[in-house]
Amino acid sequence: MTATAPILLTPGPLTTSAGTRQAMMVDWGSWDERFNQLTASVCEQLLAILNASDSHDCVPLQGSGTFAVEAAIGTLVPRDGKVLVLINGAYGKRLARICDVLGRDFSTFETAEDEPTAAADVDRLLHADPAITHVALIHCETSTGILNPLPQIADVVKNHGKRLIIDAMSSFGALAIDARKVPFDALIAASGKCLEGVPGMGFVFANKQALAVAQGNCHSLAMDLFDQHSYMAKTGQWRFTPPTHVVAALHEALVQYQEEGGLPARHQRYARNCQALLDGMAELGLRSFLPAAIQAPIIVTFHAPQDPRYQFKDFYERVKAKGFILYPGKLTQVETFRVGCIGHVDAPGMRAAVKAIAEVLQAMHVLDV
Amino acid sequence: MTATAPILLTPGPLTTSAGTRQAMMVDWGSWDERFNQLTASVCEQLLAILNASDSHDCVPLQGSGTFAVEAAIGTLVPRDGKVLVLINGAYGKRLARICDVLGRDFSTFETAEDEPTAAADVDRLLHADPAITHVALIHCETSTGILNPLPQIADVVKNHGKRLIIDAMSSFGALAIDARKVPFDALIAASGKCLEGVPGMGFVFANKQALAVAQGNCHSLAMDLFDQHSYMAKTGQWRFTPPTHVVAALHEALVQYQEEGGLPARHQRYARNCQALLDGMAELGLRSFLPAAIQAPIIVTFHAPQDPRYQFKDFYERVKAKGFILYPGKLTQVETFRVGCIGHVDAPGMRAAVKAIAEVLQAMHVLDV
Ligand SMILES: Cc1ncc(COP(=O)(O)O)c(C=O)c1O
Ligand SMILES: Cc1ncc(COP(=O)(O)O)c(C=O)c1O
Repeated sequence: MTATAPILLTPGPLTTSAGTRQAMMVDWGSWDERFNQLTASVCEQLLAILNASDSHDCVPLQGSGTFAVEAAIGTLVPRDGKVLVLINGAYGKRLARICDVLGRDFSTFETAEDEPTAAADVDRLLHADPAITHVALIHCETSTGILNPLPQIADVVKNHGKRLIIDAMSSFGALAIDARKVPFDALIAASGKCLEGVPGMGFVFANKQALAVAQGNCHSLAMDLFDQHSYMAKTGQWRFTPPTHVVAALHEALVQYQEEGGLPARHQRYARNCQALLDGMAELGLRSFLPAAIQAPIIVTFHAPQDPRYQFKDFYERVKAKGFILYPGKLTQVETFRVGCIGHVDAPGMRAAVKAIAEVLQAMHVLDV
Repeated sequence: MTATAPILLTPGPLTTSAGTRQAMMVDWGSWDERFNQLTASVCEQLLAILNASDSHDCVPLQGSGTFAVEAAIGTLVPRDGKVLVLINGAYGKRLARICDVLGRDFSTFETAEDEPTAAADVDRLLHADPAITHVALIHCETSTGILNPLPQIADVVKNHGKRLIIDAMSSFGALAIDARKVPFDALIAASGKCLEGVPGMGFVFANKQALAVAQGNCHSLAMDLFDQHSYMAKTGQWRFTPPTHVVAALHEALVQYQEEGGLPARHQRYARNCQALLDGMAELGLRSFLPAAIQAPIIVTFHAPQDPRYQFKDFYERVKAKGFILYPGKLTQVETFRVGCIGHVDAPGMRAAVKAIAEVLQAMHVLDV
């Protein structure tokens, strides 16, 4: 069954290694010391990836990545805070919606989906509105695959004495972020993305000082990261039943991450995947939506073929029958589809995917190559 | 590794079957039609267990059971509602705390931890306070294992024209509840309890009418069951990344649940487990905290031996070395420990656990049998 399952070229859930899935074959007692050690080891390893062991706490949270984003906003932005949300895609919009639902004051700054947020704009906006306390940024906006200039924006935010919240869901583990150079109050990621674990938990790297004064901020019991962290610091346990198998899989995925060579190796593999994909698709005449300079090696958005015989649904099913699962586009103006470069897959795998895509487009009479 | 892993005699996470864990060996695309079918099939089967297919929607939610409880309160109790929380243990207290954090008006009625809530008291309280709109009840209060009289309380609530919210986390699937006879606005359960799935998702059975008018109630984006349900009804997909492997495991666990004979068979096996446990422990002179009449066949609380040579931590480690994981007590006044009757285990397994407990207590010189 495993051998014949399609490769997921999606931005999570993605293809995991057999060893990572195998780690889910044990039932762990959530009260047990050995499970506590598993959790502690996961958190330590995650902090080390960011060089954040001294400055930040890692607070794991049950649920999907969005739960962790909401928890970070709810816990770390005081009720009288104001968030400047930087938007160039669907996940930025979602972050603004979270502020809205939680009743946190916020303003937005939106650029086109193929235009990274400029640090100069952030500087201007912070000058113009002193009420802003926090800036929220999507590192790699997965709806297109665009990379925003995190270090430059972090500098500006710091120079204004404001606090930064980074949604690094689709970049953490693959794109280097150094907490000793890039100051932030919260960075949010999840198990089932570039770490190649299975989905089911997120985590927030929270600045220790910011978290320490966050008691009582949160709108939610389950998403209160102050409570979650205090309880874990005291007992070694999760506050509520953890997704034990997901934690065990993430632990194993982190072992493999280190074995592969940590972040530099993971980044290189994804960069090679991305290049193999871009090169192969260019040969087929399929254009990528973003220019190379702002394309993160995470997920690539392609313009759909203009041919009326192209229908995404049909294309998707045919490519899937050849062993690869693609992702629909997330743009409203332009018809696109997306191909992920992340997960347990390498450049030859990407070339095989391109070959499958070529065959399918030929069979659909969309492509004459 | 699996063969030698200890049996979890805990109220979830619990021991699952090898087949259920095996279902996690595939990576599913969360956008894929086949995965949508898996989710739909899980929801249909869950509704059928309650005879609720016509009256209720099943809304699955990422996270632990507490997330689903909070989501139910947040979504289904209007902001100007008032909740009467019936308490006889830790989970009732937690539900009251959720109301508090969410800013929902509430009052509590607390009985001793070995005293089920009486329907007559609920009747009296509803007469006394017409502002109450919702009553919240823990079906089996897992902190002791006590069973509360759900049908009687549901009748009273209905007669007052009020709405009932049931935390059936540790009873759903093992103790019969018939939605055609027991009216409720919400019933909450989770994957990793009596259905014998792995932990990582909860679900709320929400009365269709109540859910239909719940738009805008919720304090949270991620926990908004109205949004979660609308999106799923429209697209077949989860709103945010689902814990795909947890869903697949639950699907397989439900197949096995039906093969075993559904709820009656599951109930009988747990009842036999509970009886084997109670009989065996009584022979050792270990007294259960609750009288038999109010003991649910889910988890049993035992008085700790009075002997000063007994220390839970030591006892726990020794029993674990013999292959069984027990659970600490959750009572503040009396020293206790707990033994779960649920999970992929049968009466001979429970007798083996009792034997291990006997040997350990002898080795600790606590018991002279
Ligand atoms: C940048 C970004 N933020 C947030 C999310 C939301 O995560 P989830 O779907 O796990 O809730 C995603 C998911 O892909 C993402 O890529
Ligand atoms: C009755 C009851 N309610 C709520 C919960 C909370 O569930 P979780 O620990 O999954 O958040 C539990 C957990 O055992 C429970 O037994």
